[in-house]
Amino acid sequence: MKKDRGMDAFFKPRTVAVLGASSNPKKIGHVIFRNFVENGFKNVYPVNPKAEPAMGHKAYPSLASIPKKIDLAIIATPAETVPELMEDCAKKNVKAVVVISGGFSEVGRKDLEDKVKEISKKSNIRVIGPNCIGVMDKSRGVDTMFLPTYRLARPPIGNIAFLSQSGAVGSAIVDWCGKEMFGISKFISYGNAVDVNEISLIEYLSKDRDTKVIAAYLEGTHNGRELMRVARKVSRKKPIVMIKAGRSENGAKAVASHTGSLAGSDQIFDSACRQCGIIRAYSTEDLFDYAQALDTQPVAKGNRIAIITNGGGFGVIATDSCEEEGLVLAKFEDKTIEEVKKGIPWYAVPKNPLDIVGDADAARYRTAIENAAKDPNVDGIVCVVLFQTAPLESEVVDVIAQAMEYGKPIVVCSAGGDYTEVHRKMLERSGIPAFPTPERAVRAMGCLVKYGRYLQKTKGR
Amino acid sequence: MKKDRGMDAFFKPRTVAVLGASSNPKKIGHVIFRNFVENGFKNVYPVNPKAEPAMGHKAYPSLASIPKKIDLAIIATPAETVPELMEDCAKKNVKAVVVISGGFSEVGRKDLEDKVKEISKKSNIRVIGPNCIGVMDKSRGVDTMFLPTYRLARPPIGNIAFLSQSGAVGSAIVDWCGKEMFGISKFISYGNAVDVNEISLIEYLSKDRDTKVIAAYLEGTHNGRELMRVARKVSRKKPIVMIKAGRSENGAKAVASHTGSLAGSDQIFDSACRQCGIIRAYSTEDLFDYAQALDTQPVAKGNRIAIITNGGGFGVIATDSCEEEGLVLAKFEDKTIEEVKKGIPWYAVPKNPLDIVGDADAARYRTAIENAAKDPNVDGIVCVVLFQTAPLESEVVDVIAQAMEYGKPIVVCSAGGDYTEVHRKMLERSGIPAFPTPERAVRAMGCLVKYGRYLQKTKGR
Repeated sequence: MKKDRGMDAFFKPRTVAVLGASSNPKKIGHVIFRNFVENGFKNVYPVNPKAEPAMGHKAYPSLASIPKKIDLAIIATPAETVPELMEDCAKKNVKAVVVISGGFSEVGRKDLEDKVKEISKKSNIRVIGPNCIGVMDKSRGVDTMFLPTYRLARPPIGNIAFLSQSGAVGSAIVDWCGKEMFGISKFISYGNAVDVNEISLIEYLSKDRDTKVIAAYLEGTHNGRELMRVARKVSRKKPIVMIKAGRSENGAKAVASHTGSLAGSDQIFDSACRQCGIIRAYSTEDLFDYAQALDTQPVAKGNRIAIITNGGGFGVIATDSCEEEGLVLAKFEDKTIEEVKKGIPWYAVPKNPLDIVGDADAARYRTAIENAAKDPNVDGIVCVVLFQTAPLESEVVDVIAQAMEYGKPIVVCSAGGDYTEVHRKMLERSGIPAFPTPERAVRAMGCLVKYGRYLQKTKGR
Repeated sequence: MKKDRGMDAFFKPRTVAVLGASSNPKKIGHVIFRNFVENGFKNVYPVNPKAEPAMGHKAYPSLASIPKKIDLAIIATPAETVPELMEDCAKKNVKAVVVISGGFSEVGRKDLEDKVKEISKKSNIRVIGPNCIGVMDKSRGVDTMFLPTYRLARPPIGNIAFLSQSGAVGSAIVDWCGKEMFGISKFISYGNAVDVNEISLIEYLSKDRDTKVIAAYLEGTHNGRELMRVARKVSRKKPIVMIKAGRSENGAKAVASHTGSLAGSDQIFDSACRQCGIIRAYSTEDLFDYAQALDTQPVAKGNRIAIITNGGGFGVIATDSCEEEGLVLAKFEDKTIEEVKKGIPWYAVPKNPLDIVGDADAARYRTAIENAAKDPNVDGIVCVVLFQTAPLESEVVDVIAQAMEYGKPIVVCSAGGDYTEVHRKMLERSGIPAFPTPERAVRAMGCLVKYGRYLQKTKGR
């Protein structure tokens, strides 16, 4: 594929040069170099004019002086120096360059940016940036994020690829994933996008075996028609979740001064997304929640939902939320009702939402979930598990995880404090998306229903 | 006030009897008795038929045998025994009773519930419950919540009173407050509400000096007209934030089988809320966020908002959210722009949203926030603080807290992982509501604008 030309060099480089890496730990280049070393990446070379060693590693005064071929160069030097360094990269036949440096079109230096673009084109070098925080692929030891690890946690290796036009939004998301222990396959902040942009990234990630879900923060698109063409193709095999900022009039103006993108008409973008299967998130929370649900759960085959809860109030809230999401309450089969009746006390009523009441234990959850999962009228299960009650032991986590064998999507709401949070995370590590509010759980289920519907609609086309 | 007759006995009892407290730590009565003892409450008496001591405290075989007057009795025995125990309370001239026990109208035993109601009326005893988790006022050592403290954290003493028709929703909220360290003045789960209900509670809390904000979870109201009359009066001096579940058709049905309330038309309820100043939350997250904002921040005098951020993308998202909330971007005065210019680098643009860019430190935040706060065109400040960047030291927390002296509302968004969370909590403990997403921060500001508008509209009326 011509489009993917050289993209692998960003994520699977054999050799890396960090331009601007010196002994000064305050310098961005130093931090990036250290990331590679600490990740166990072997062939990484610091480059700085005085050839000052970095972290005891021999440094080079120039790219040319490195006695090896270089796949990936990372530039973290002042903007004015970047065009010349790009020329060095061209001479050295570097395949890909990440330009971390800011100080280009975003501050009125379009001239410098145009030079970078020109060299990229004429020398066939792939470029990410400038004005970005670059790329991360922990499975290969690649990490150009120059933000201190004590401030920005690095998430574990997983299946979600995040791409972000904004470095700040991107780094907050990565940090958040680190805290929640959500696995990331790749992270890319593409900044001013002189070459690689959201379109080439989505295309590349669609073929990346490590990536199951593509999540994106965009402020504008570099080519709406092309984005839609690519998305239509990709979304049939991998979900694309997208938050597109600059929806409002003032938001669009803010976008223009932030990334210089044209935000465009939001309504047009919205209907384009629907047509080509992009799942649009309208809040940062949803972006995150949708990606998690799509990563761990199968899509729903329909919109008929069973709600199971040990707290009636949360059952009511979840029911309200279902209606808002276009989900309907499944009508249980008679057989389901009979079976559930056997496992719940006389004062609980075997209907949907299924309130198995405050003294429910893990066994009662098992009865409810298994029978709901077996019911052909049920397409997905929203399970509210309140851990404040004494009879509910941690075993319920296994009970819910085991119910995944029925092949229907399950999401959980567990609202509360520290004891609850421990269990919420146990659920998540067992592959069950678990949310601190019923509304978020239902919206995540809504996403699985919408994507399921899109896949069915486009099947065979 | 006739309406408040005896209500103090729930929250400020001098003497308490726990009916059903025994030596068995698995019994609800035991847990409740222990709460009082552990809170240092002196005059609490366990009562059980065999006079088994509880936690080494002398127990009594009946209420009558306690050689003291009893202000508050807590009943945690099977439903069938409750009417008789209520009669005992009447004979003993107990002022108030919390009936924790379930097994009444919610399971078809309206007969038992009617008896409790009848005794309450004829003997002038105030009753909370049955089928509830009761009351908590930590400042007086009162806590009838029978959920284990290791599962359900108790929040610190503060200004927000929570009342909940659902015990499960209530306990999840209390637990959540415990984790977030939000201060609660009083918590009340009122269950089947044979006597005390949402209306009497709102009226009582309006006069409670410890309570600044009233937050409520309702599934229905016991008297819509009366609720509105009381709310109209109360909301002029204290904000009432309310989540009303059963909004959808199926949600209303779920309500009927959960608490037996009539959910009623949601549109009518909605316009009634607007008329009488109830701030309606449409999600559990909002209920919580609104209460926190109203507790710590002044209301906004208008809807002109300044957005300050060290990450452009979050500035864009916040701008979008403002439009959704009916907030407008403030137009800075020339003087503000001049002053801000002095404190930001050349590559940052002094306009709203004010992106002070990724290398912002605490001093730059000070310039931005102080000047925005002084600008007469600004009614409130939404401040995005991303802690992932190296130059931003913890001092920014003090900078933001100090800006409260200008008397304008400030809310913060800090998105990220553990390092961020530590600082988000530092902000909250300094009295600044700080949220993990920009959308939530803006919605909280929206609430301060809406309530401010209501206060202005009703002033002098």
